[in-house]
Amino acid sequence: MVRAPLMSLDEAIALVLAQAVREPMAPEWVSTFEAQGRVLAQALTSELDVPARDNTSMDGYALNTRDLAQWPDCAPLKVAQRIAAGAVGLPLQMGEAARIFTGAWVPEGANAVAMQEDCELLESGGLRVLKAVSPAQWIRQQGEDVRVGQEVLRVGERLNAASLGLAASVGAHQLCVAKRPRVALFSTGDELVMPGEVAPGDMLPGAIYNSNRFFLRSLLISLGCTLTDYGIVPDRREATQDALKSAAQESDLILTSGGVSVGEEDHVKPSVEALGTLHLWSLAMKPGKPFALGEVRAGDGAGERRAHFMGLPGNPVSSLVTFLILVRPFLLALQGATQVQTKAFQMQAHFDWPRADPRQEFLRVRRNLQGGLSLFDNQSSGVLTSCVWADGLVDNPPQNPIRHGDWVRYLPFSELGL
Amino acid sequence: MVRAPLMSLDEAIALVLAQAVREPMAPEWVSTFEAQGRVLAQALTSELDVPARDNTSMDGYALNTRDLAQWPDCAPLKVAQRIAAGAVGLPLQMGEAARIFTGAWVPEGANAVAMQEDCELLESGGLRVLKAVSPAQWIRQQGEDVRVGQEVLRVGERLNAASLGLAASVGAHQLCVAKRPRVALFSTGDELVMPGEVAPGDMLPGAIYNSNRFFLRSLLISLGCTLTDYGIVPDRREATQDALKSAAQESDLILTSGGVSVGEEDHVKPSVEALGTLHLWSLAMKPGKPFALGEVRAGDGAGERRAHFMGLPGNPVSSLVTFLILVRPFLLALQGATQVQTKAFQMQAHFDWPRADPRQEFLRVRRNLQGGLSLFDNQSSGVLTSCVWADGLVDNPPQNPIRHGDWVRYLPFSELGL
Repeated sequence: MVRAPLMSLDEAIALVLAQAVREPMAPEWVSTFEAQGRVLAQALTSELDVPARDNTSMDGYALNTRDLAQWPDCAPLKVAQRIAAGAVGLPLQMGEAARIFTGAWVPEGANAVAMQEDCELLESGGLRVLKAVSPAQWIRQQGEDVRVGQEVLRVGERLNAASLGLAASVGAHQLCVAKRPRVALFSTGDELVMPGEVAPGDMLPGAIYNSNRFFLRSLLISLGCTLTDYGIVPDRREATQDALKSAAQESDLILTSGGVSVGEEDHVKPSVEALGTLHLWSLAMKPGKPFALGEVRAGDGAGERRAHFMGLPGNPVSSLVTFLILVRPFLLALQGATQVQTKAFQMQAHFDWPRADPRQEFLRVRRNLQGGLSLFDNQSSGVLTSCVWADGLVDNPPQNPIRHGDWVRYLPFSELGL
Repeated sequence: MVRAPLMSLDEAIALVLAQAVREPMAPEWVSTFEAQGRVLAQALTSELDVPARDNTSMDGYALNTRDLAQWPDCAPLKVAQRIAAGAVGLPLQMGEAARIFTGAWVPEGANAVAMQEDCELLESGGLRVLKAVSPAQWIRQQGEDVRVGQEVLRVGERLNAASLGLAASVGAHQLCVAKRPRVALFSTGDELVMPGEVAPGDMLPGAIYNSNRFFLRSLLISLGCTLTDYGIVPDRREATQDALKSAAQESDLILTSGGVSVGEEDHVKPSVEALGTLHLWSLAMKPGKPFALGEVRAGDGAGERRAHFMGLPGNPVSSLVTFLILVRPFLLALQGATQVQTKAFQMQAHFDWPRADPRQEFLRVRRNLQGGLSLFDNQSSGVLTSCVWADGLVDNPPQNPIRHGDWVRYLPFSELGL
């Protein structure tokens, strides 16, 4: 048997992303309250300056520095008014100061604020300024955060809490974002049992619990997808095709785990092939390797709706890592996100990994107290404890042995959405 | 006016955490499907080995290496059976091999697996093994991931997708986690306007949009809190007290933003003081500084329920950073999380920050393509665009000027839950 050459991961990622951007998700308007994690589909431009006017960043006294020209020997200022945040003061007259509170607009005629701690209120009611004041001191300039007409959020940005705050600060109560991808999740494998259905002590020989379904659901939901869990694929061809067709009708992506290895015999591969197209790849990736990309038509008509199809390996760690490295960028690209790849950190390996592998490896590692990376002792693709222990992956190129102290590419799970 | 010494951030964090652990959240059982982001309240111990038995990590042929002793000149093996994942094979006889698929249990009598790519199926039906096979090859050992009795998830772990997968793999369909903290969110400030209620062009002088509410909601929800948004604090003392009492009845934490500066006059401070206790701190932190910690009693009885109270500064960036540095650890500690502080990265500053500040500073920075950190050009605490542009904070000690090339403590937003 001739071994086919493995496909490089870079090539696979490029093909996956090309399929995603061919037909991106349509836009929709959502409340800014609900937009976390969504990808912006229409730029947000401000219709106002933020702050709208010069205002004070301190509690204190608004004044004009010309009145303090002879400081420290100048006459006390007359405290003529009191301006709370939200209130608008009167123009300041020569020799006057205004009591003012953080955020309040600086009144006309004032050009600086003296902190209250730097002032003394005299019994006469006058104000003595105890410290030199320079023009513009403690004043936030109009438009220093945002200017009228400024694009504050760009198309393709994935919105986090700060983005929502910024959108709100320019008065946007709704944002135009890409629709949530609808994902149909299938599990394959006759050996799979759902936790809760059979107690550990009653498991039949050969049976294993379906763990992939749990982390895939969780990852998909974190990515903002709407999930339909189809459970375990039925073990008859016709039923499988019906389930796939129905999923293609109502989903943007059909995702399976298991059933895509060369030797495996299940109904998913032939069913997808019958309903659309399927490419089975052997990726130069470890953990990982088998991966399927394709499309499923909802029916036989020429204009029928099609859903993307992706098949992950069945091994838990392979499935998890392949999701993070291929499916996640796909789902972000499908939403039009500008940044679909995780920014890596350069970190020092505090371990040896002498056996270079011909495949690109993703080693489960954890940052240690010495500022380096420690390696989980069992890197087998079946060992899910490695992913719970780890806080990220080392992305190690093919044929690259690692020596203690080498700088490596580290991808934190937090950046991968885990 | 004498300036009170500022409280160090370390001291404030210690006091905040001490208040959190005094009375942690009660535990509850939830479906493993729903447990993402929750903190484990009862350790999870496995009742089974994972894998339950030796199994194959490859599609191929299970065999016994004693039958290949004369390899490459040994006789072809007889392919006596076919074992799919989930099926249980018969004991292997001398001179036999079993066709076997990834995940399937290795039959009794077999001690290795030959990859199908390394075998040739002869026309006679016999199997020739084309490559030397060593004992235990391509076999995943029973219990290599998890052993019976092993603690797979520890009390205080915050559960991510991988943890849920691991829990499922040992058959746990429910997990005992800390209850979600219930948080009552108040905004204070007469100047605040909700986006959508007034168009940017119609904003009255002095009015600003309430942006803090948006990012605080988003951050609280990401932390797994149940949120009740009380909106803007009523501007009468009695109404404020009633709202606080009612919030204390049904919440674990009452969180406000704005209204805790020394000079500010709103109804929250006196109301909290009337209903419980309130400590107003000036923190050696920038952005930040004003911060309030206290408790609110739901009523006058001795055994009345009390809610924690935390007051954030009103400036958006101050409010956001103070949340990340103080409130987030508090809410994690309240749930019994072991790790409440964010693990920092050591990164190189690609900027100068010559003016050392007496306060501990949190600079908004972004990782650049050169592997260093770039600084946002306006570090004012009112400039929320800095937090959207940035991907993390530099945690800079008091009195510490930074020079281009210095190593600094970098806290990525992704690790801070933003």
